[in-house]
Amino acid sequence: MPVREARLRDDLEANGSFGAVEGPGHGRTVLTGSDADRAARDHFVDRLEDAGLAVRVDAVGNVVGRYTPDDADPTAAPVAAGSHLDSVPEGGIFDGPLGVYAALEAVRALKEDGADLARPVEVVNLTEEEGQRFGGGLVGSSVAAGDMSLEAALSLEDDGETLEEALAGIGYQGDGVVDASEWDAWLELHIEQGERLETAGVPAGVVTSITGLTRCAVEIGGEADHAGTTPMGGRTDALAAASEFVLDVERAAEARTESSASAVGTVGHVEAAPNAPNVIPGRVDLTVDVRDVEYDSVETIVAAARDSLDRLERERGVETSLDRPWDRRPVPMSDRVREAFHVAGADRGIDTADLHSGAAHDTMHFANATDAGLLFAPSRDGLSHTPREWTDWADCAAAAEVLAGAVAELASD
Amino acid sequence: MPVREARLRDDLEANGSFGAVEGPGHGRTVLTGSDADRAARDHFVDRLEDAGLAVRVDAVGNVVGRYTPDDADPTAAPVAAGSHLDSVPEGGIFDGPLGVYAALEAVRALKEDGADLARPVEVVNLTEEEGQRFGGGLVGSSVAAGDMSLEAALSLEDDGETLEEALAGIGYQGDGVVDASEWDAWLELHIEQGERLETAGVPAGVVTSITGLTRCAVEIGGEADHAGTTPMGGRTDALAAASEFVLDVERAAEARTESSASAVGTVGHVEAAPNAPNVIPGRVDLTVDVRDVEYDSVETIVAAARDSLDRLERERGVETSLDRPWDRRPVPMSDRVREAFHVAGADRGIDTADLHSGAAHDTMHFANATDAGLLFAPSRDGLSHTPREWTDWADCAAAAEVLAGAVAELASD
Repeated sequence: MPVREARLRDDLEANGSFGAVEGPGHGRTVLTGSDADRAARDHFVDRLEDAGLAVRVDAVGNVVGRYTPDDADPTAAPVAAGSHLDSVPEGGIFDGPLGVYAALEAVRALKEDGADLARPVEVVNLTEEEGQRFGGGLVGSSVAAGDMSLEAALSLEDDGETLEEALAGIGYQGDGVVDASEWDAWLELHIEQGERLETAGVPAGVVTSITGLTRCAVEIGGEADHAGTTPMGGRTDALAAASEFVLDVERAAEARTESSASAVGTVGHVEAAPNAPNVIPGRVDLTVDVRDVEYDSVETIVAAARDSLDRLERERGVETSLDRPWDRRPVPMSDRVREAFHVAGADRGIDTADLHSGAAHDTMHFANATDAGLLFAPSRDGLSHTPREWTDWADCAAAAEVLAGAVAELASD
Repeated sequence: MPVREARLRDDLEANGSFGAVEGPGHGRTVLTGSDADRAARDHFVDRLEDAGLAVRVDAVGNVVGRYTPDDADPTAAPVAAGSHLDSVPEGGIFDGPLGVYAALEAVRALKEDGADLARPVEVVNLTEEEGQRFGGGLVGSSVAAGDMSLEAALSLEDDGETLEEALAGIGYQGDGVVDASEWDAWLELHIEQGERLETAGVPAGVVTSITGLTRCAVEIGGEADHAGTTPMGGRTDALAAASEFVLDVERAAEARTESSASAVGTVGHVEAAPNAPNVIPGRVDLTVDVRDVEYDSVETIVAAARDSLDRLERERGVETSLDRPWDRRPVPMSDRVREAFHVAGADRGIDTADLHSGAAHDTMHFANATDAGLLFAPSRDGLSHTPREWTDWADCAAAAEVLAGAVAELASD
C-alpha cells in the first residue's frame, strides 16, 4: 500500500501555484474568500472527484471527500483525515496542504491496494485555520467540533465582510455542518514547525499533547517627557520598565524549563508611544505568549509576569495592567490514534518518535469530539510561515505512508 | 519701558488660532508650507507693519522686521531677537511664538518708551525650526548662520515637495539670505520645556550652555522563530537582547549623573520585527538620544552603549550595529548676552537664574556667528509639544520684559 511520492508532490506543487508569491523560496498567500482560496478549493474538489470520492461542502466551507470501500458498512462512523489549505500572507506550501493532500494520497493508496476496510474514510479541508481574516483561527474545526456555533462563525467580520459573504463569494458556502462527533477517529498530518524531527533524523513525529497556551496583553504607562530636559532622576520611562518586564518573563520561562523542558514564554509584540527618538516613552504595550504541555507551567510563568508588574509599579512608579484574553489547557492526543501511528511506522520500517506540539492545530478542537491524533513531518530549520518553509519530498511521502497505515488500521474494524 | 502683558497675550492667542486643534488645552498644528503657516506668517507681517517695522523675507522664508530708531546709526550692526512660528503636530501655542512675539513686544515697548538706542533692532521668525517636514529642523537658522547652504536647504524634500516649492506655494520665498554674522547680537526667548524654573519660582532662566547631543541608531538582529515550537534554550531573541540594552543605557546615564547632573540618555524609539505575538522577535531597531553640557558625558554613555552591544553579541549571539548619524558638541552662550539678561532682570526686580538647555534651539547655530543668548520662561509641569503646554501670561510678560531690557542694553552702544 505504498503512497506515491511523485503524485503527492504534484498535488502540493499544483496547490502551491494558487496565490504563489514571487521571489526566492516557495511562498503562497491563500486568505479565506480570496481568488486564490477559490482556485485552491476548486483544484482540491477536482482531485477528490478524480479519485472517486463523493464531495460535500458544509455551511462553514469545510470540504469533505468521502471514500466508501466496497466491503465497508456505509453507515459506519468514518475515519477522517485532513488539515487546511489556507495560509498566512507569504506562507509556505506545506503548512496545511501537506495534511490535506497526504490524506487524499492515503485514500488513493488504500484504494489501489484494495485494503480491506470496514469504515468509510473522509478527506477534509477545514476553513480559516490561520485566522488571518476571520476570528482567531481554527474556525472550520471549531464549528465541526461544536465549540463555536455556525451563526457565530458566519458572522465573523473582516473589513466589513462577513465570513458568510466571503464563502458565498467564492461559491463555498454549502449546507449542514460537518459533525466531528460522528467520526470514529480524526488524524491530521502537519509540518512540525520546529527542529526536533530534523535533528533526530526521524520523518514522523507522533504528538503526545498539544500545548496549553495563554496570551496576555500588557500595558505599562509612564510619563512621556522631553528626552533632553527631563533629568534621569525625574523620569517614569515606560520602555525601561517594559525592558525589565521582558527580561523577567524570559527568566521565569527559563527557570520553569528545569521542571518542564517544553515550557516557553515569549514577548513577541511591543509598541511604544509616542515612539519618538527625543521623547521618553510614556506607554508601552506588549504581548506575552506562554505555552506548555503542563498547565502548571503556564500558571507559574503568568504569575511571575504579574509579580514583575507589581514590582515595577512599586519601584518605577509606572501603572500597569495585564489582560488574559486567551487561555487554553493542554490537549492530550488519543492513545488509540497514537498507537496506530507507531504501529504503522513500525510495520513499514519508518522511524517514529513521540513529541509534543508547541503550536495550535485544528486537531485540538476534535480531541473532545472523537479519538484525535496529530502526526508531524520534519520542517527544515524549523521554519514555517515563510516561503523558506520546506519539507523534503521523501519525508512528505514517509509521513503520508504512516498516515495511510494508521487510517487503514483504524478503519479496518 | 514695561512690555504690555495684554498686548503680548492678544498676539499669542491670535497666533494660536492658526492651525488650532480641537479638544482640551491649547493646541495648534503649523507645518512649514501649510495654510496655517501662511496665515500665521501673514498675521505676523501685519503686526510688524502695524508696529512700524520694515519687513523683508529671505530666500529660505525667514521673516525679519527691522526697527531703526530715530537716533540710531542705520548702518550699525543690529541687535536681533526672535524664534519660530512653526510647530509640531498638535503642539502648543508658546513653543516658538513666545520668542517671536516677545521680541516684537520688546520693540514696541522700546519705541513707546523712547529708548535711546544706537543700533537697529530686528524681530525674526525663522523657518522650519521643528523639522517636521524638511530636514532635521533648525533650517532657517542653519542657513542664516552659514551652517547650511541655501541650495541644500531649498532642495530638502517632504513627500515629493521641496522646501523651495513649499515656501513659494505660500508666498514666502523672498530674496537674499539673512546673515547672522552681521548681527551685533542675537537673543531668543523660549519656553523651558522642563520644570526647573517652575520649581524654583523664577520667571526668567538665563541659559549658560545648550546641551551636546548624540543620536544613535541601533540594530539588534536575532532569529525570528515560532514562539510555541522553539525551546527557551534554542532562541536568539532580539527583543530580550534589546531590553538588556535599554537598561544598560539607562544605567550608564544614571551613573554619569554623579559627575554631571545634567547627563541624560534615552531610548525613545523601538521597533520590533515581525512584531507578532506568536513569533520570537528577529530584529529590533532602537534609537539612543544622549545629551549633556559636558561632552565627556556623551562620549562616556555612548561608549557604555557600545560595550553593551559587544556583550550582547557574546552572551546572546545577536548581531548588532550602532550608527551615530548626529553628533553636536555643547554650545556655550555669550557671556555678554547672559550678563545683559541678568542686569535687565535685576534692574526690573525680576528674578533670573542660570540653567542649561537640554533641548536644541535655533540659537545654537547663531553662537558661532555672533554673540548669542537664550532666555527661558517657565513651562507648567515641563510640558511641551502638546496642547497642555502652558506658561502663565504674567510669566510670559516678565520674561519678555527681561528680553526687552537686554535688547535695550545691547543696542544702546
